[in-house]
Amino acid sequence: MTLPTPEEVRRVACVGAGVIGGGWVAHFLARGYDVTAWDPAPDAEAKLRRLVDAAWPALTQLGLAEGASRDRLTVTPTLELAVAEAQFVQESAPEKLDLKRDLLARLDAATPAGVVIASSTSGYPMTDMQTTAADPSRLVVGHPFNPPYLIPLVEVVGGEHTEEAAVSWASRFYEVAGKSVITMDREVPGFIANRLQEALWREALHMVANGEATVRDIDASITEGPGLRWAVMGPMLTFALAGGEGGMAHMLDHFGPSLKAPWTRLEAPELDRELYDAVVSGCDVAADGRTIAELVAERDRGVIDVLRATGRLGGKAEPR
Amino acid sequence: MTLPTPEEVRRVACVGAGVIGGGWVAHFLARGYDVTAWDPAPDAEAKLRRLVDAAWPALTQLGLAEGASRDRLTVTPTLELAVAEAQFVQESAPEKLDLKRDLLARLDAATPAGVVIASSTSGYPMTDMQTTAADPSRLVVGHPFNPPYLIPLVEVVGGEHTEEAAVSWASRFYEVAGKSVITMDREVPGFIANRLQEALWREALHMVANGEATVRDIDASITEGPGLRWAVMGPMLTFALAGGEGGMAHMLDHFGPSLKAPWTRLEAPELDRELYDAVVSGCDVAADGRTIAELVAERDRGVIDVLRATGRLGGKAEPR
Repeated sequence: MTLPTPEEVRRVACVGAGVIGGGWVAHFLARGYDVTAWDPAPDAEAKLRRLVDAAWPALTQLGLAEGASRDRLTVTPTLELAVAEAQFVQESAPEKLDLKRDLLARLDAATPAGVVIASSTSGYPMTDMQTTAADPSRLVVGHPFNPPYLIPLVEVVGGEHTEEAAVSWASRFYEVAGKSVITMDREVPGFIANRLQEALWREALHMVANGEATVRDIDASITEGPGLRWAVMGPMLTFALAGGEGGMAHMLDHFGPSLKAPWTRLEAPELDRELYDAVVSGCDVAADGRTIAELVAERDRGVIDVLRATGRLGGKAEPR
Repeated sequence: MTLPTPEEVRRVACVGAGVIGGGWVAHFLARGYDVTAWDPAPDAEAKLRRLVDAAWPALTQLGLAEGASRDRLTVTPTLELAVAEAQFVQESAPEKLDLKRDLLARLDAATPAGVVIASSTSGYPMTDMQTTAADPSRLVVGHPFNPPYLIPLVEVVGGEHTEEAAVSWASRFYEVAGKSVITMDREVPGFIANRLQEALWREALHMVANGEATVRDIDASITEGPGLRWAVMGPMLTFALAGGEGGMAHMLDHFGPSLKAPWTRLEAPELDRELYDAVVSGCDVAADGRTIAELVAERDRGVIDVLRATGRLGGKAEPR
């Protein structure tokens, strides 16, 4: 069998059909793929079809790919049948290292040679998961965000024994399949976005544990505050705009000392010249020629669009 | 002079007219208030009027309050003139404790008795700032998010010597002025949202310092990932949905062990029974009777609205 290019893929296998695996199924169906799925739970098929049915109106509204249909989903009685003719495999099993290891080895044994197998793991490095597979070279992490049928981001990274070609094939495939891809050149536990949201989540848990804020306060503080900006502009450029016309350099001069303040339980790194320069020049790269005034205008337009789209215009925010 | 109720306020003073102070000026003008402003910088008035002019088209689009006009801004040559007839004072000076202390004492001396004075401080507890004012009882924190004319959130909290009545007056005033308010019953450095975004920011700085991710990767990982959800639903309820039909309890059972994983430099609190119960029951309160299926539908609708509003529909996300 000739291996397909990312553009030629027509048949995708999803192994594990819980919230994440089922979300992947919905995404791939909406993008017009044939999808085979397998999950060991006895009621897995009914649950999966419920999830896809629940997502379908939204996906229809978003615009289905030509030929996309829920009829193109086949739930198979065995893992081997699910992957036998797959041109790409997405594994979304529970987050247990031993389970992932065994499952990836089984998938590797049952999947046509050379076909890329991606794991949805939230944070295990592939190096730790690919230890027992006969051919670890085609195993990559393809980490999505819930729900995979709506949130564009996928973080792609290989392990020590992954071939570079498998990583770039997977990155390209996800792009073709409508995702927004960050390809990492090294393994970091939790990848990028999960490290960031895990820091926030842990600080939130500390606050709940200490009675400093309620769950509701925490959620409102994000949806009515920084969350509105983060849908539009990331935390780095957003902070650069707090520096006014001086941008990130002025922001670091002004707020750098607050890195020493006990504003979170997380210790900050030393803001030495090297880090200062890396952040400032990194912001220049991210700004990509846009001036501070242009970035402010872009952020403002985006936030207004988000406020309007989520029904929060006209002054007072509606309680959500 | 009789003190106005929050609903009766017509004249607001903004002291400090940088990015935040100027943003407050734009907000109060758009909501129809008379605004007096003072800032010691020699070019402050020109800069402030530029900022207000830049924000005005957006604010017009959002819907100005009746009678709102940029002509209702008066920039005064002295601090004392700015606050002499103010019915509410918003202080937005640079983030230096000594400066804030002195300025709040001066404001207290010059502002009509009983009028509430709020500080935009990003993280100083009012207890530490109100030490030299003759009447600390009317000094509160009213912490906004940049830009104050677009991001609804204001965190309100008093210091040890603040009267409860001043805190509740300020909270009510901000609501009348179109803000979304969280009133805290105790002082925590960084309040709520800044603690959460500071944890994320510090983790991001660590990643840049270690070469694990670029500034651009970090920003994209948020805008294409969790940031899209956070504009719609906070981190706690969002995570509850990762638990599928089992909600937060199932999520904690499933992902609780990852609190021990090195997914961020921030150590997690012990997930003991008490914290587990607090998070689960806090989510029930925040869900306010909505089932998991209803929350999923709400999140999906919101994320689709945000994707559409920010031009990211149709599969592949546009680079921003």
